[in-house]
Amino acid sequence: MTITITVFERAFDKGRGLARDMRVRWALEEVGEPYEARLVPWEEFKAEAHLARNPFGQIPTYEEGNLTLFESGAIVLHIAERFPGLLPIDADARARAIMWMFAALSTVEPPIVDRDVVGYAEAGKIWQSERFAMVDERIRKRLTQLSARMGDGEWLDGAFSAADIIMVHVLRRLEGSGLLEEFPTLAAYIARAEARPAYKRAFAAQLKVWEENK
Amino acid sequence: MTITITVFERAFDKGRGLARDMRVRWALEEVGEPYEARLVPWEEFKAEAHLARNPFGQIPTYEEGNLTLFESGAIVLHIAERFPGLLPIDADARARAIMWMFAALSTVEPPIVDRDVVGYAEAGKIWQSERFAMVDERIRKRLTQLSARMGDGEWLDGAFSAADIIMVHVLRRLEGSGLLEEFPTLAAYIARAEARPAYKRAFAAQLKVWEENK
Repeated sequence: MTITITVFERAFDKGRGLARDMRVRWALEEVGEPYEARLVPWEEFKAEAHLARNPFGQIPTYEEGNLTLFESGAIVLHIAERFPGLLPIDADARARAIMWMFAALSTVEPPIVDRDVVGYAEAGKIWQSERFAMVDERIRKRLTQLSARMGDGEWLDGAFSAADIIMVHVLRRLEGSGLLEEFPTLAAYIARAEARPAYKRAFAAQLKVWEENK
Repeated sequence: MTITITVFERAFDKGRGLARDMRVRWALEEVGEPYEARLVPWEEFKAEAHLARNPFGQIPTYEEGNLTLFESGAIVLHIAERFPGLLPIDADARARAIMWMFAALSTVEPPIVDRDVVGYAEAGKIWQSERFAMVDERIRKRLTQLSARMGDGEWLDGAFSAADIIMVHVLRRLEGSGLLEEFPTLAAYIARAEARPAYKRAFAAQLKVWEENK
């Protein structure tokens, strides 16, 4: 059954692989499943056809037969449950991998996204620099805790899993902020992930869309 | 095997059931599993014993045999996978229920939590009222989209599921803000959930902790 995902026709990050379709592409590359990408132009996100796929008008979505999913976390978990390779077999280890997916999305990502909100929604406000400082402290707290827990570990919890896809991609959104450089453990973790062949294939695929449509 | 969860000894919400242990209590009541609650005083959240359970120093956590989990979303999903009653049997419907758990936590909850951040971290700032207005617009956008998708549906997607536990609890955090009153569909959805016997038992259990330790 053909897998189709939706992606930005022209991504806000200009091919840097920061849009959330990168998570889904990476997961599909890790499990070796082919997919098609449907390009969504900006003007179509709030149109009926896309809202039927995702009522919040975001990408990515995932279609396979009669199933339509949205939310990158849910899609990556679905891929990990559907195809072998991204979740441990042991029941407890599997539960912990899923736990780390939620931790990445619920505990680590929100202040990182908030930093972007300060950047675009509060540009020109007299308080912007003070807000950046406040948000950066919240981010540093989470990165300090995450770094402490990871220690010398190669991945979040034993072998590479779907959780590492989500966490690495969440952290990558801080590229250019200077914050990752304060946490060598996390910078090395991201570099390990980016060296994976599946990551490279996914990155190249999203970059190609940007190059062809910019 | 005994299930033990951690909860605030003295919750910030004074027994209103807004702390995230409510989600786990509610899920356990829905599936009819007994559990023990370990009360964590404020001064112990950053102590080694609790950080071993949750590196981010938050509640709830879930312990059962050799398994320790944190993140309310992951715990509720684990309960739903471990005991029958909170996830559909049909594979596609099950994937959609899990999708709605992620949607509640990744797309609906962040601006709602941000509203609380504005309330406590930006109290006294000259920009606080302007920030409240900005955050409320982001919340309204999500509630409008959610309300439109729900339409006349009783629950998020067919039968009551683990996703409704998470979504209802996320929305309840807006109580007192005046925002829920703008969305009768969502107010009715919350009321339906609060009428469930399992919800009432969970609510009473967390209130008892507050009454005994306030």
